[in-house]
Amino acid sequence: MTQFKTHGYAASEPGSSLKKIEIELGELGPEDVLIDVEYCGICHSDLSMINNEWGMSDYPLVAGHEVVGTISEVGSAVTQHQKGDLVGLGWHSGYCQSCTSCGTGDQNLCATAESTIVGRHGGFADQVKAHQQAVVRLPDGMDAKSAGPLFCGGITVFNPMVQFDVKPTDKVAVIGIGGLGHLALQFLNAWGCEVTAFTSSESKTEEAKQLGAHHTINSRSESEIEAAQGRFDYILSTVNVKLDWNLYISTLKPKGRLHFVGATLEPLDISVFGLMAQQRSISSSPVGSPETIRAMLEFATQHDIKPQVEMFKFDNVNDALEHLESGKARYRIVLEK
Amino acid sequence: MTQFKTHGYAASEPGSSLKKIEIELGELGPEDVLIDVEYCGICHSDLSMINNEWGMSDYPLVAGHEVVGTISEVGSAVTQHQKGDLVGLGWHSGYCQSCTSCGTGDQNLCATAESTIVGRHGGFADQVKAHQQAVVRLPDGMDAKSAGPLFCGGITVFNPMVQFDVKPTDKVAVIGIGGLGHLALQFLNAWGCEVTAFTSSESKTEEAKQLGAHHTINSRSESEIEAAQGRFDYILSTVNVKLDWNLYISTLKPKGRLHFVGATLEPLDISVFGLMAQQRSISSSPVGSPETIRAMLEFATQHDIKPQVEMFKFDNVNDALEHLESGKARYRIVLEK
Repeated sequence: MTQFKTHGYAASEPGSSLKKIEIELGELGPEDVLIDVEYCGICHSDLSMINNEWGMSDYPLVAGHEVVGTISEVGSAVTQHQKGDLVGLGWHSGYCQSCTSCGTGDQNLCATAESTIVGRHGGFADQVKAHQQAVVRLPDGMDAKSAGPLFCGGITVFNPMVQFDVKPTDKVAVIGIGGLGHLALQFLNAWGCEVTAFTSSESKTEEAKQLGAHHTINSRSESEIEAAQGRFDYILSTVNVKLDWNLYISTLKPKGRLHFVGATLEPLDISVFGLMAQQRSISSSPVGSPETIRAMLEFATQHDIKPQVEMFKFDNVNDALEHLESGKARYRIVLEK
Repeated sequence: MTQFKTHGYAASEPGSSLKKIEIELGELGPEDVLIDVEYCGICHSDLSMINNEWGMSDYPLVAGHEVVGTISEVGSAVTQHQKGDLVGLGWHSGYCQSCTSCGTGDQNLCATAESTIVGRHGGFADQVKAHQQAVVRLPDGMDAKSAGPLFCGGITVFNPMVQFDVKPTDKVAVIGIGGLGHLALQFLNAWGCEVTAFTSSESKTEEAKQLGAHHTINSRSESEIEAAQGRFDYILSTVNVKLDWNLYISTLKPKGRLHFVGATLEPLDISVFGLMAQQRSISSSPVGSPETIRAMLEFATQHDIKPQVEMFKFDNVNDALEHLESGKARYRIVLEK
């Protein structure tokens, strides 16, 4: 069988700058597809993996899991895609297909799912390989250039709206207006909700409104937050810092939910009483299943929801990573040929 | 209008022993009923209120919110009950009837609901007053003597099964086999679930099985808990001490829920990562609505679910409280005439 090779931008050790190297993709499994990468978004978890922050990085490490490209080869048993399809690939590149989560359409919760950049080469490359089930075709009319971030950032904020049945009549809020938050505002607005943005950045207040927020609250102002007591059905936290979570919980209505998609490292120190009297919930979730990604892409196309992106050439990937690390990206970075 | 008086067992100050005094019940409002108390369970929150642990006790304080008795007077506009009805009264003695929670059948989440023993006299008395809506008739065939604890302990563990849609096919667990836990085991077993009891007490292992547990896990054994990773859809915590919550969360399946009905005072220090990868939730809730109490009483009657009670005479209420405080009650204490 053909042994596929390609070129990718790899870190040779934790924190090193990326260099273009030849990488082995190996054989194409019967259900694998090969994607010629056209665009690849950069997500904060690419940085975490390059720096081995989660202790699961293999080097040389080729990051990149917000891929958009065209299928150039298909395995012998591929039925869902054909050569020439314009597709995307996100955090997962394959699922076990035999566990309960896979069997019930929750492939994103599959404990042994393959991750695009864990123990294999990701999308900062000319080609990337993936199982057909993890690859989703772009709907007609979707802008390929900005679509990459939907496959990780987009699905991460969209998925809990589906999983936890957020309703158009809900009053919702988003904490943190960045790569994830700027997408959450757009999705929740299009969903029909009354949307509030919690942001610590004065400069983002106007932008938050343009993105879909009907109201903004200064997250540095305890009194502004207190004034919002009992207001929200659903709050999405997209930040990875420690906040006064019990204060945010007090802004939830009875039966309200505070949902985390930001990878906050510090424990949440939640008070049971703040949850109990009003039957509130806390939860968290990762990305989404292929079917939910498909629904998200259609919804985004229908409502003209687009990641706001800054483009860098693949050859300038190190500049792009530096820009991301500086916190100044507005709001997602995408690499292009 | 008639000013009702009665006698009750009152604490004169935080932590004092109870003495029988005459108490003023005032007028009967148009929708109020007067209940001649026959039995009253003692709940741990009666102790907390007597000791002013929550800073909201008024003295003289007449505790008691697991009342069973007969309606002896009805207000002019009472339509739901009549004299002679055998009824129960729990934590709430009235609701605002105008907020969203009341309007959607979640009266137990009404922020201005009246509590039976907060700012008014409870059920350690010859008579107690309540709004008709907060009073629920005992189903035919229910044992009045042991029914009191269902109105607080029982509904507290039953309500989340309804609220969070616990299914008969679910694998469930109960942490703490005491006043609440011994009822949870019975309800969950009758619900059709496979039930596991987490208990630190060797002596309760056999009892837990008699109460409905199919399996037991020694909660002092980290290795036993670890061996249960990914096993449960739903865990109910009935304890009020700090445990290694992240360890318990690891025993949840994907989409599993850890629900708190024990009033744990220490913050929960939950790791977001333990929730995120498997889309798990944390929640808490208080008692239940009148309709849920009604459903719970019918379910208990149908399945012969009974609080295991130790009886004390009302005149021995101080001995009863001491017995409760000693932690030796198996499993609920009920006062009788």
